[in-house]
Amino acid sequence: MNALSPDHLPDLSAPRIAFQGEPGAYSEAALLEYARWRGLPHPHPVPCISFEDIFAQVNQGQVEYGFIPIENSLAGSIHRNYDLLLQNDLWVIGEYHLRVAHCLLACPEAGLEDIHKVISHPQALAQCDGFLRRLGVTIEAAYDTAGSAKIVSQRSDCTVAAIASRRAAEIYGLKILVENIEDNPANFTRFLMIAPQSGDPGEDAKTSIVFSLRNVPGSLFKGMGVFALRDIDLTKIESRPLVGKPWEYFFYIDFAGSIKDPVVQRALAHLEELALFLRILGSYPRHRQVS
Amino acid sequence: MNALSPDHLPDLSAPRIAFQGEPGAYSEAALLEYARWRGLPHPHPVPCISFEDIFAQVNQGQVEYGFIPIENSLAGSIHRNYDLLLQNDLWVIGEYHLRVAHCLLACPEAGLEDIHKVISHPQALAQCDGFLRRLGVTIEAAYDTAGSAKIVSQRSDCTVAAIASRRAAEIYGLKILVENIEDNPANFTRFLMIAPQSGDPGEDAKTSIVFSLRNVPGSLFKGMGVFALRDIDLTKIESRPLVGKPWEYFFYIDFAGSIKDPVVQRALAHLEELALFLRILGSYPRHRQVS
Repeated sequence: MNALSPDHLPDLSAPRIAFQGEPGAYSEAALLEYARWRGLPHPHPVPCISFEDIFAQVNQGQVEYGFIPIENSLAGSIHRNYDLLLQNDLWVIGEYHLRVAHCLLACPEAGLEDIHKVISHPQALAQCDGFLRRLGVTIEAAYDTAGSAKIVSQRSDCTVAAIASRRAAEIYGLKILVENIEDNPANFTRFLMIAPQSGDPGEDAKTSIVFSLRNVPGSLFKGMGVFALRDIDLTKIESRPLVGKPWEYFFYIDFAGSIKDPVVQRALAHLEELALFLRILGSYPRHRQVS
Repeated sequence: MNALSPDHLPDLSAPRIAFQGEPGAYSEAALLEYARWRGLPHPHPVPCISFEDIFAQVNQGQVEYGFIPIENSLAGSIHRNYDLLLQNDLWVIGEYHLRVAHCLLACPEAGLEDIHKVISHPQALAQCDGFLRRLGVTIEAAYDTAGSAKIVSQRSDCTVAAIASRRAAEIYGLKILVENIEDNPANFTRFLMIAPQSGDPGEDAKTSIVFSLRNVPGSLFKGMGVFALRDIDLTKIESRPLVGKPWEYFFYIDFAGSIKDPVVQRALAHLEELALFLRILGSYPRHRQVS
């Protein structure tokens, strides 16, 4: 596993939450915000190399929870994590919408006029394209955003800056030269908290399911009828074709309501009558996105 | 604009098609396959730095067509390109599903045992993670896959390899050490061909639309009813929340059928009765994904 910064020294009483990336990654910033929002004890974030590693660590009990990105407002759903949710017997117990605010980070002595090169993950570089063009700098790709901050902190070169999170600046002792440098401020990533057992959805809940239907005309219309006819509001619907199986799809649906609500239970029993496959991923407290 | 390789010297009779990336990018490979599938004259691919540049070049008439990725079977929909379709007054006139087959490329003298470092776009590196771990190499990020092939061709170092397309090997004079090194073979990207005028959808057609609905319970159920009640098959449905507007969504729907079909026209007229906003992105020959 990755080297741990002093901020990551284990606190044995803190819940361990696995995330993908280096210390300072947006996933880590999001899980800390999530814990604050839910009033949880300050967690101990555990960096993982891949999404697969997160699921493996939760399965093996090396961590209590995993924290995974599931969709981004500009880039779309992360199907890979839906696949992993289906392949593993874990539960979604929470969600959080992180506003992705990119910062330009450099060594503490640097001024904006000193910067000649900016390094970061290609997606972060692309999301700040307008800013970088105005700055007139060269760009260089890095494997991830927090990793680019680490590189800048290791090189003693005040002409190189990184694009990463505010938290990466704290961890790697860098200065924030400019904040919110992304071209499109409507940049949110939704994360899911996963655990070996289901959680308490609370009063204001959301439920996530995945299902497939018999391939007959109007099957999805009927499938959605089980919710519409009970006035259950959908907050997400997405079809995903099954590769190699024309006309067969998985549907991802999120809806407002708790699995403990009898109306929701009847809707899901009704959906089971129509579905070839149905999996309840979890029912959890709803996080309302702020912009 | 990027430097052009000899393969990209203008042929004035060839249709110019803008794509994002360097020569040898997967987008370029896809547009060449698309042209072959449609029996079009061999096109002249025009590399662009960003998706925005593609739309600008088509708008300004510098190219006849643009070719954009819209969804990937592992990574999901590319919402940014849906945004650009809505912001620009262009039409979708074709689609193509490319099987993304990653190749390990090196200088012609290299053998697999010589390779100590592999460079590519972080997403390609992640998609070949299993292969790279077995190979026991270090990895390095590059801005894009074709760019990594270019870097390998410029360095005269037989210990460094790139992950890129088969076409990138041809363009940059590299040797394919191993083909299909991706961990998951179900890796397809769907591309759309865009143009200033609508095209001929032909007999076996698909139509793409974007719409929003009044936020009342069951509105999406009614919206889907206009298709289900006419036995029109949906091939994609996706909701996208509008940032800062809770409970307001755009819906992306693709369905089997041509805009020239009276049944389809009646369904869309019916949808207009329910929709706050409706845009027909285009009606085009359907490309059936092979796996």
